[in-house]
Amino acid sequence: MASPIITFTTDFGLTDHYVGVMKGVAMGLCPEARCVDITHGIPPFAILEGAYEIAQAYRYFPAGTIHVVVVDPGVGTARRPLLVEAASQFFLAPDNGVLSLLFKREVYRARHLTADSFFLHPVSHTFHGRDIFAPVAGHLARGVPSAQLGPVISDPQKLSSVSPQQKDEKTWHGLVWKADRFGNLITTFQSSEFSHLLQSDFTLTVGNQTLHTLSRTFAETPAGELALLTGSGGYLEVAINQGSAAQQLGCVSSSPVTLTQGLTL
Amino acid sequence: MASPIITFTTDFGLTDHYVGVMKGVAMGLCPEARCVDITHGIPPFAILEGAYEIAQAYRYFPAGTIHVVVVDPGVGTARRPLLVEAASQFFLAPDNGVLSLLFKREVYRARHLTADSFFLHPVSHTFHGRDIFAPVAGHLARGVPSAQLGPVISDPQKLSSVSPQQKDEKTWHGLVWKADRFGNLITTFQSSEFSHLLQSDFTLTVGNQTLHTLSRTFAETPAGELALLTGSGGYLEVAINQGSAAQQLGCVSSSPVTLTQGLTL
Amino acid sequence: MASPIITFTTDFGLTDHYVGVMKGVAMGLCPEARCVDITHGIPPFAILEGAYEIAQAYRYFPAGTIHVVVVDPGVGTARRPLLVEAASQFFLAPDNGVLSLLFKREVYRARHLTADSFFLHPVSHTFHGRDIFAPVAGHLARGVPSAQLGPVISDPQKLSSVSPQQKDEKTWHGLVWKADRFGNLITTFQSSEFSHLLQSDFTLTVGNQTLHTLSRTFAETPAGELALLTGSGGYLEVAINQGSAAQQLGCVSSSPVTLTQGLTL
Repeated sequence: MASPIITFTTDFGLTDHYVGVMKGVAMGLCPEARCVDITHGIPPFAILEGAYEIAQAYRYFPAGTIHVVVVDPGVGTARRPLLVEAASQFFLAPDNGVLSLLFKREVYRARHLTADSFFLHPVSHTFHGRDIFAPVAGHLARGVPSAQLGPVISDPQKLSSVSPQQKDEKTWHGLVWKADRFGNLITTFQSSEFSHLLQSDFTLTVGNQTLHTLSRTFAETPAGELALLTGSGGYLEVAINQGSAAQQLGCVSSSPVTLTQGLTL
Repeated sequence: MASPIITFTTDFGLTDHYVGVMKGVAMGLCPEARCVDITHGIPPFAILEGAYEIAQAYRYFPAGTIHVVVVDPGVGTARRPLLVEAASQFFLAPDNGVLSLLFKREVYRARHLTADSFFLHPVSHTFHGRDIFAPVAGHLARGVPSAQLGPVISDPQKLSSVSPQQKDEKTWHGLVWKADRFGNLITTFQSSEFSHLLQSDFTLTVGNQTLHTLSRTFAETPAGELALLTGSGGYLEVAINQGSAAQQLGCVSSSPVTLTQGLTL
Repeated sequence: MASPIITFTTDFGLTDHYVGVMKGVAMGLCPEARCVDITHGIPPFAILEGAYEIAQAYRYFPAGTIHVVVVDPGVGTARRPLLVEAASQFFLAPDNGVLSLLFKREVYRARHLTADSFFLHPVSHTFHGRDIFAPVAGHLARGVPSAQLGPVISDPQKLSSVSPQQKDEKTWHGLVWKADRFGNLITTFQSSEFSHLLQSDFTLTVGNQTLHTLSRTFAETPAGELALLTGSGGYLEVAINQGSAAQQLGCVSSSPVTLTQGLTL
């Protein structure tokens, strides 16, 4: 059997030792584990961005992969640590909505991590990535059954903002998940979910701009011009070929995006 | 046999899930593969910097290593995806010149990646790193022969700017590859190639400064003073001991650098 | 036996190929080695921050781990390259004080790395991470005994600033190790060392602020308010719940911190 993969998705950045230490803890418990970073560049405490990143990433990992997701403004409080099984993979995260998009997509079973004999002691009040999530990942990787880690729960926290909300018959309100490295604005509108709208006249409003056509590639738009396309993750993205849409439109994570049936200005 | 190494060199940055997803795809196909990042900090679309980074890095990896290089402003257009065999290693990259410095140095065989049964489907128009280059890397790592991946081609794209151009008998025009993390300005002048010039009087002009002597270490120059030395990659570098030459000279990637025989001001 | 872990802690950043190349060298010599990054985000030449990061990290790695630590303003000069054995692990670093906090904590044996047959030749004057420390790490990982690498020395360099200095009966002078990703100011005051002081009235002065109480978690302080707590590494940290103490207090690495017995303003 191939050794298990453990991935890490956090808002810890890479300028401190925090990420390295989590890997040391997990590999100390399961030397065959192979660690992969999804990203540590989620802005501090940006739960919604974390929900997007892990949901885009897990689908490309093999069955059995263990995902550690730590965006955790409530660390040290009563918020529960979770183990979620979905899509034949494992997800370890605080119960604050950071797995909302996963919950929307997949059948899942969530557990409250209560078996503290699998934690690193003394458990600090400020770094559960190291003291709870990484050691539990290591124990899962070496074969501890999930049932030993805590009871099943039915009420993990979910954020409604991961889905656009219908305002009236013709209008949906969504938002910008995030601006990516290239300045592309990734929205919460999944193209496949809104294909009926996108196939005839439509208006997408973001910043002070409106877009009415869907392009196929970055490069088919003239350099410097705004384009709307379906990004690699299946969501509508607003982009500028070889430029930054985020900068030009002044939009950031959580900026409002509206999709309307028909041509409006 | 040791499991193969797959390296990654991109302009994707580390704040998105893009790099992690490429690794998931490759490791899903070849669980024994070991992933190593060269850098993901190439500025968006900076093909010339990408050409420099991969050419400096590959020489330090063992035979059989598979290098994935994605700086790809033309993603989704007709530009060809390539597999290049050189120096007993493999290179996967778009055909846009990003392997130019490798081509200058090594005997190589280039193939047009056409065997799309080895791609991840549906192939997106915006993320060939995930859908073409990473899965082909995984298949190569598990032993698929390169001949099955596409026909040999003779005309991969090459950038002339990776070599200084001779202007007249005494003058060569090159440029700044990049400013590195320390603010050192790495030039396209390879010391060994210009040793005849550097052994007697010479003038190197960069920004509004001229340099006439070659130092041996950073530390032998007084702190704050400009120095010229042969960097760890064999190219002339302009540096300031414990300071940033890039900042002081206002130079960036592609800034002109001139090397002249004799002392001029 | 599990394959050895090699960790890397540097000021190289991630925008160049330097880190990837060190891994290529080490893995070329010991294909089973598993590479883990502690951090490459130490500010250029910030030896004191490097001393903090490696000392916080090593404790979470298993016995036999090999740590490569390169913050090396004196590269190419006569400063010695070191191999240190402590806590059943190995540390490779320049002899410039970057292991000072390790020396304070652990019984150690230090060697001057002189066996240059284990180096990569020609040894450059500017990149000993690649030419000395990474290859020696690879050789150690494949089982070369440390005694073959150089003679034991008794005088490795130590920085006194890793410990607060007592000024008078009631006052200790320390400093800010660093501001972390969250803007938390980590001080050189170890809580356990100063518990006698912290258990009754005390005053901690940093920037133009004074603090008198120790909190338990980030979240128990009102958002936006300054708090003092024991960080995950055991040191006093000044933090703002969901804000940046570094920004608000204008403090950086090496800013002075004073701890005084009793309540003063």
